[in-house]
Amino acid sequence: MRWIRDQKRVLVTDTTFRDAHQSLLATRVRTYDLVRIAEATGKLAAGLFSLEMWGGATFDVAMRFLKECPWERLEKLRAKIPNILFQMLLRGANAVGYANYPDNVIRAFVKEAARAGIDVFRIFDSLNWVDNMRVAIEAVREEGKVAEAAICYTGDIHDPSRPKYSLQYYVELAKELEKAGAHILAIKDMAGLLKPYAAYDLIRALKDAVDLPIHLHTHDTSGNGMATLLKAIEAGVDIVDCATSALSGLTSQPSLNALVYALQRHERDTGLDPDALQKLDHYWEDVRKYYKGFESGLLAPSAEVYRHEMPGGQYSNLQQQAKAVGLDDRWDEVKEMYAVVNRMFGDIVKVTPSSKVVGDMALFMVQNNLTEEDVYEKGHALSFPDSVVQFFQGYLGQPPGGFPPKLQEIVLKGREPITCRPGELLEPVDFDALRLEVESKVGRTVTNRELLSYVLYPQVFLDYAQHVQTYGDVSVLDTPTFFYGLRPGEEIAVEIERGKTLIIKLLSVGELQQGGLRTVYFELNGQPREILIRDESAHVATEERPKADPANPLEIGATMPGKVIKVLVEAGDRVRKGEHLLVTEAMKMETTIQAPCEAVVEEILVREGDSVQTGDLLLRLGKKA
Amino acid sequence: MRWIRDQKRVLVTDTTFRDAHQSLLATRVRTYDLVRIAEATGKLAAGLFSLEMWGGATFDVAMRFLKECPWERLEKLRAKIPNILFQMLLRGANAVGYANYPDNVIRAFVKEAARAGIDVFRIFDSLNWVDNMRVAIEAVREEGKVAEAAICYTGDIHDPSRPKYSLQYYVELAKELEKAGAHILAIKDMAGLLKPYAAYDLIRALKDAVDLPIHLHTHDTSGNGMATLLKAIEAGVDIVDCATSALSGLTSQPSLNALVYALQRHERDTGLDPDALQKLDHYWEDVRKYYKGFESGLLAPSAEVYRHEMPGGQYSNLQQQAKAVGLDDRWDEVKEMYAVVNRMFGDIVKVTPSSKVVGDMALFMVQNNLTEEDVYEKGHALSFPDSVVQFFQGYLGQPPGGFPPKLQEIVLKGREPITCRPGELLEPVDFDALRLEVESKVGRTVTNRELLSYVLYPQVFLDYAQHVQTYGDVSVLDTPTFFYGLRPGEEIAVEIERGKTLIIKLLSVGELQQGGLRTVYFELNGQPREILIRDESAHVATEERPKADPANPLEIGATMPGKVIKVLVEAGDRVRKGEHLLVTEAMKMETTIQAPCEAVVEEILVREGDSVQTGDLLLRLGKKA
Repeated sequence: MRWIRDQKRVLVTDTTFRDAHQSLLATRVRTYDLVRIAEATGKLAAGLFSLEMWGGATFDVAMRFLKECPWERLEKLRAKIPNILFQMLLRGANAVGYANYPDNVIRAFVKEAARAGIDVFRIFDSLNWVDNMRVAIEAVREEGKVAEAAICYTGDIHDPSRPKYSLQYYVELAKELEKAGAHILAIKDMAGLLKPYAAYDLIRALKDAVDLPIHLHTHDTSGNGMATLLKAIEAGVDIVDCATSALSGLTSQPSLNALVYALQRHERDTGLDPDALQKLDHYWEDVRKYYKGFESGLLAPSAEVYRHEMPGGQYSNLQQQAKAVGLDDRWDEVKEMYAVVNRMFGDIVKVTPSSKVVGDMALFMVQNNLTEEDVYEKGHALSFPDSVVQFFQGYLGQPPGGFPPKLQEIVLKGREPITCRPGELLEPVDFDALRLEVESKVGRTVTNRELLSYVLYPQVFLDYAQHVQTYGDVSVLDTPTFFYGLRPGEEIAVEIERGKTLIIKLLSVGELQQGGLRTVYFELNGQPREILIRDESAHVATEERPKADPANPLEIGATMPGKVIKVLVEAGDRVRKGEHLLVTEAMKMETTIQAPCEAVVEEILVREGDSVQTGDLLLRLGKKA
Repeated sequence: MRWIRDQKRVLVTDTTFRDAHQSLLATRVRTYDLVRIAEATGKLAAGLFSLEMWGGATFDVAMRFLKECPWERLEKLRAKIPNILFQMLLRGANAVGYANYPDNVIRAFVKEAARAGIDVFRIFDSLNWVDNMRVAIEAVREEGKVAEAAICYTGDIHDPSRPKYSLQYYVELAKELEKAGAHILAIKDMAGLLKPYAAYDLIRALKDAVDLPIHLHTHDTSGNGMATLLKAIEAGVDIVDCATSALSGLTSQPSLNALVYALQRHERDTGLDPDALQKLDHYWEDVRKYYKGFESGLLAPSAEVYRHEMPGGQYSNLQQQAKAVGLDDRWDEVKEMYAVVNRMFGDIVKVTPSSKVVGDMALFMVQNNLTEEDVYEKGHALSFPDSVVQFFQGYLGQPPGGFPPKLQEIVLKGREPITCRPGELLEPVDFDALRLEVESKVGRTVTNRELLSYVLYPQVFLDYAQHVQTYGDVSVLDTPTFFYGLRPGEEIAVEIERGKTLIIKLLSVGELQQGGLRTVYFELNGQPREILIRDESAHVATEERPKADPANPLEIGATMPGKVIKVLVEAGDRVRKGEHLLVTEAMKMETTIQAPCEAVVEEILVREGDSVQTGDLLLRLGKKA
């Protein structure tokens, strides 16, 4: 990688295909819209260092919402863009999922991703715990690909009140990553907290400390993003991340086009052609309009990010989650609580999946009107979200400085935490056995890549496979998002390949049927057609339920609006203190409810699949007979 | 002003009350919403250098659309914020209007503005012609106020292909302004063209060349705005313009809150408290939602501004204008044409009113499918917009390097241009005589300030005065924008003073009546009320008219969709070549149509007030008998 450090010009990674639409459009950009501009991107942006085009959210959302195969996206783009490095974001031991996976899964995933076309793997750990990154770094090296190991940036190196995240901390971490085998060192500033002058000092220190090229990734949430890039460039950063102007700014990356102009005739001129990039940008300006419904509604920068420290990718997601559980009006409180929870957790790095733990806890506390003091005082009687319990058990890894002991004890309620690498405790996946299991479930043979999709997102993959089976091969027409935003009578032209255009005209949308399905009637090039689509916006009627008495510990109430996903006991059962009673789910947040004391289950008021509101009485316990 | 240059910290002007909402919300923020946050602003932002709160567009829009008195706004805010300097933008010899005014008008305006509460006058000329700024600079000095003379920045000092706007050019201009009596030197980068490293070099050169404090104003259109401020601050700029985060970014200024954070613990720390500013920002975040209908729809930065060079304040206006004349689909062409027109005009400074000339010409050319070559070849037969004719006559002043002679000759068609200061040719206004005239028109006595409003915007003032007379004193309830965005059944709470809240509930909106009026039925604190409001969105039906034959010079067609505002000839009249036939108006753009040759007026197909479409036959000429 010496050639990178020897370049005078600054190199650029374009995040338009991954982080830009993840941060601005809830990751909803379809393969179709990426492939259409792929060839032109290869030509007009040939001077780029790399294109970031894959990561956790793109992998998940492709299957979950777009009903597309993420591997197919990768292959299609690779075929059209042979000349620019492809870059992906890998969550260390979490691969592109949310959990820790056995080491053999990480190795198999890296191998397939490399074969399918990924050149540069940006590997991070959500607690900056290098032990959790080693397997991935080694696997990438074994495939002969580029291992870009990332430092996640949080706090402020210039703020004496945050001594944990000092310049020295990052320098030591960088040295560790260099020793662990990184080819490139990335600074992943996922929330946009790296201020311009801090960027300058950090880059200078890292350039002195390690021999690796340094790659900076930031978000423009505060409005300081471009200034941060320029100060980093002055300090000698080798590569920076930007997004095409039309998908830049705010929670996305700073504008590629603006950077190219800013550095014209500067000694570190990017060498990219602004007029060529403008052509690509006009395309994205138009495409963005199709995804209007996924816009976060954020209109201006928000320097508040320096207070709450929420990653760019999480902001709109958590806002949606808050809305879904009825906290729209209390969003300002949720943001403040996010900062409070971070302090309670001992000031941790917040990025997927650790950011989700902080977000879940903040929602939980606001929903249940809990202050920090309440948690310390009444915490023993509270059912914390599963993600919070797992975090304190050590299943995400070890945070710098360890866990705050008092809160850990309150959350774990006597469970033993682990201190080793979670991957060590996991049995390797037996891929041959698993293949048989999955094939019997989907009723056909599956490829290695599909098997990996299943390992990472079992239910999501099965739903996806079911969808493909029902509606045929994934193609233009069974992607419901093509109808997104169309009103009856409107039509769109979809060019599926050069010279081959489909005219889709929406005729009408049928009544809501069993299972939340609707028939959509449309014309395809003048021929009437119909398709059955699941209406994700359909609301399921909820019953009124009796409420639990909050003063009575034997009445167990729901802590969040959501669904009952498992009932683990029956009426009449004797339960020990801490025994699991049932599991609820609100958005992506699961909560396991435990018995507060030894008791008998008197009455269970819900069944699996039931919808519940906050405070609804789930079950009633009686003192042990 | 020595104290300013002696400060180590960088001083900040907050543009939230003027340029921020001018650039993002079409200048629509009402006095009501400014006054509500005024006291808090005085307290929480006490360390600011100044608050920009008045200018041409705020003056115009207050009367024209909000039916508010701009002077009253100034006085009310002054009463609530006694502790921060008030700053306004003054268009030199154009005051806060679009035309050149006699010197005694400029003097009278400055005097009244100073008395009403303005401390700092930022004075500029739209062609950087110092002669046009002297009267204003002297008038400000005479009132004992601060004369901040502005250089308008265009081109790129680092671009060898734009030698007209070199570093040397700006240095000479700065020296001239210092000699002319400026207390502060402003760099008015109205389009956001000043790139970060150019800002550094420019500020360094200006600091060396003059003894004045330097004040930088830029726009974040490209996404480089904050980087430009920081490089200017490193180079020693004394004061910078920012806007509250919720109204910052894109065509507005960079974020005040972000700047404060970026400079924390830096040697040029602003000294402002980010937590206090955050409270003000939460207010603006909420208020912005009420003005949703005035959002430009721009979602991301646009580095294209370096190509078209359109000022931040003009972008959304011109887009609206293009839409109004049916060019929505050709907006990209209009932007490109704007750059072409600038070249044709000899590369000029583009800011109100010169930017309007370029915009009018660009719309005219796109509308009539004219290329640059067409203008040179067929220009003698074309009726150019009046603003273009006046520009080439010298009525805006003299551009650096003079007018391009060939185009000037084509546009002027034999008229003589002037080379002196337009103000010299204008008779002083006889305020006593004018007062009698205005009082007879409005049927009551008028104040000095109202008289000035009339001089600057005669028809707008009369409409405003009429409105106040019909609906009573300007107050909460006759500001139609309070109903903006409400749907029948919805209500809003309006706190008109501490503890006094009005609940306004919209009941229904009546049918469109004669004159475009509608009755709006609503409840005020539970009591039913009604009010008559002009529906500005009401479309007047347009008739189908015969089209002019473009190949026949004797058939005169409309060049833009709009209205016929004057018919200057009658059927049977003999007209000379160049004689004025009629005047049309499209949005704010007037066009005087002249006879292409000696002829007889055969038939006039339109009357004053008629609406016309592009190409409609207006009148038919015959060869002279």
